[in-house]
Amino acid sequence: MRIARFSVNDEVAYGLVDTDQDSGQDYVSRISGHPLMGQFQLTGERAKVEDVRLLSPVLPSKVVCIGKNYADHVAEMSGITGPSTEEPVVFLKPSTSVAGPGDPVFYPPVSQRVDFEGELAIVIARPCREVPRERAKDVIFGYTVANDVTARDLQQTDKQWTRAKGFDSFCPIGPWIETGLSLEEAGDLRLTTTVDGEVRQDGRTSQFIHDIPAVISYVTSFMTLLPGDVLLTGTPAGVGPVQTGQEMTVTVEKVGSLTNRVVPRD
Amino acid sequence: MRIARFSVNDEVAYGLVDTDQDSGQDYVSRISGHPLMGQFQLTGERAKVEDVRLLSPVLPSKVVCIGKNYADHVAEMSGITGPSTEEPVVFLKPSTSVAGPGDPVFYPPVSQRVDFEGELAIVIARPCREVPRERAKDVIFGYTVANDVTARDLQQTDKQWTRAKGFDSFCPIGPWIETGLSLEEAGDLRLTTTVDGEVRQDGRTSQFIHDIPAVISYVTSFMTLLPGDVLLTGTPAGVGPVQTGQEMTVTVEKVGSLTNRVVPRD
Repeated sequence: MRIARFSVNDEVAYGLVDTDQDSGQDYVSRISGHPLMGQFQLTGERAKVEDVRLLSPVLPSKVVCIGKNYADHVAEMSGITGPSTEEPVVFLKPSTSVAGPGDPVFYPPVSQRVDFEGELAIVIARPCREVPRERAKDVIFGYTVANDVTARDLQQTDKQWTRAKGFDSFCPIGPWIETGLSLEEAGDLRLTTTVDGEVRQDGRTSQFIHDIPAVISYVTSFMTLLPGDVLLTGTPAGVGPVQTGQEMTVTVEKVGSLTNRVVPRD
Repeated sequence: MRIARFSVNDEVAYGLVDTDQDSGQDYVSRISGHPLMGQFQLTGERAKVEDVRLLSPVLPSKVVCIGKNYADHVAEMSGITGPSTEEPVVFLKPSTSVAGPGDPVFYPPVSQRVDFEGELAIVIARPCREVPRERAKDVIFGYTVANDVTARDLQQTDKQWTRAKGFDSFCPIGPWIETGLSLEEAGDLRLTTTVDGEVRQDGRTSQFIHDIPAVISYVTSFMTLLPGDVLLTGTPAGVGPVQTGQEMTVTVEKVGSLTNRVVPRD
């Protein structure tokens, strides 16, 4: 099931996305209620996805990110190869950095190097703390796609990454939440990022250093997660700069594609 | 005006705190409406503060913290003396780390060294971005007291401070929001922290390396702040460890005192 959040006629609504078998066209069927609250019902309203504005499918209270979780990305950032045995690097992006599919990503004038980082994102289903590996699947609502946009120059000079990764619009999420994947499927998905159509990242989630149960177990060992919280699972090799005017598309197999254009700040 | 959030008879309410001139007793007068929304009215209900349970006076969407903002604390942490000319160090504490006055602070078994850090906290009044120094006062709702509890050993070994400063209960805030201080007053307040009654920190906000307008201007240069967001302004010299069973009290002159006891996790 694919759950989208969208606006139509100045209203915000949730809906289920399905693809018409004949035309290949995506449709969204409006639902009443909040999907994270459990029960909801189809209202009967239905529209082409292209005729509504998709929003970030969730408004997380927290965006918790795992850094350096693909061995090939660790190597490109540090020059060191081989798997890491360290604990995950965890950082937060502020909720004000969240943007939706198609929303602009604003290039901050203070940075001279802004990078895309395509990621698989986990959406949390319920309040949870100290989740053991074997119960991780029980706290997952579904999966979506994220772009951990990063001002690389500020990341290198600032002691903490809050600014470099925290600008408004630096966390596009979408296009919807896919709830139908097993943990095994989610752990072996192709992830690609293109810039103006050119492939820049092409990895698989099977390359995770810390897999999805490990990430959930580690983060909840110190922090309660709440329904709708989003975990970004790290980015594969190939990160690189974007310029204003360029279009970034992160695609996760079986989940969806998230496209955002970089625009100048004001 | 002192605005508290409290629970009484299983209800959560806001109220104004005043001190009876004769008895020295603090009273809370319940208000209807949300103080951050502007208008509110006294309901006529009034209780002794000691007869209600004070809660964190605000539920922030973000807790944004400034590190190393008192020269004497920078010196004790790094051995380097003299004022810094660098930009502020900014990090986030997750909203799930927020606790209220009197709430327990849980000592995580994974840490062998948990420190108190007494701080003046700013509560934001309205959505704001790119606030110039001279308009900083317009976005301040008031001031409260916070304790930036930190697992010092994890802060030193983790690359980012998210875990060390992000455990549930590691951000006590309270006891209320004082809305009556001018920017000049807030910039010259005595701040003390005691552990079991013994003074461990004794500083003044006049020692800020980055003053309140500078902090607000810097943070909003990259991040929109929302009503109720909380900015922690850094801690003076004297930080040190606490053990389970000990009671930490952070007092900011003209604002109030925030007391929390350290207890074992589970």
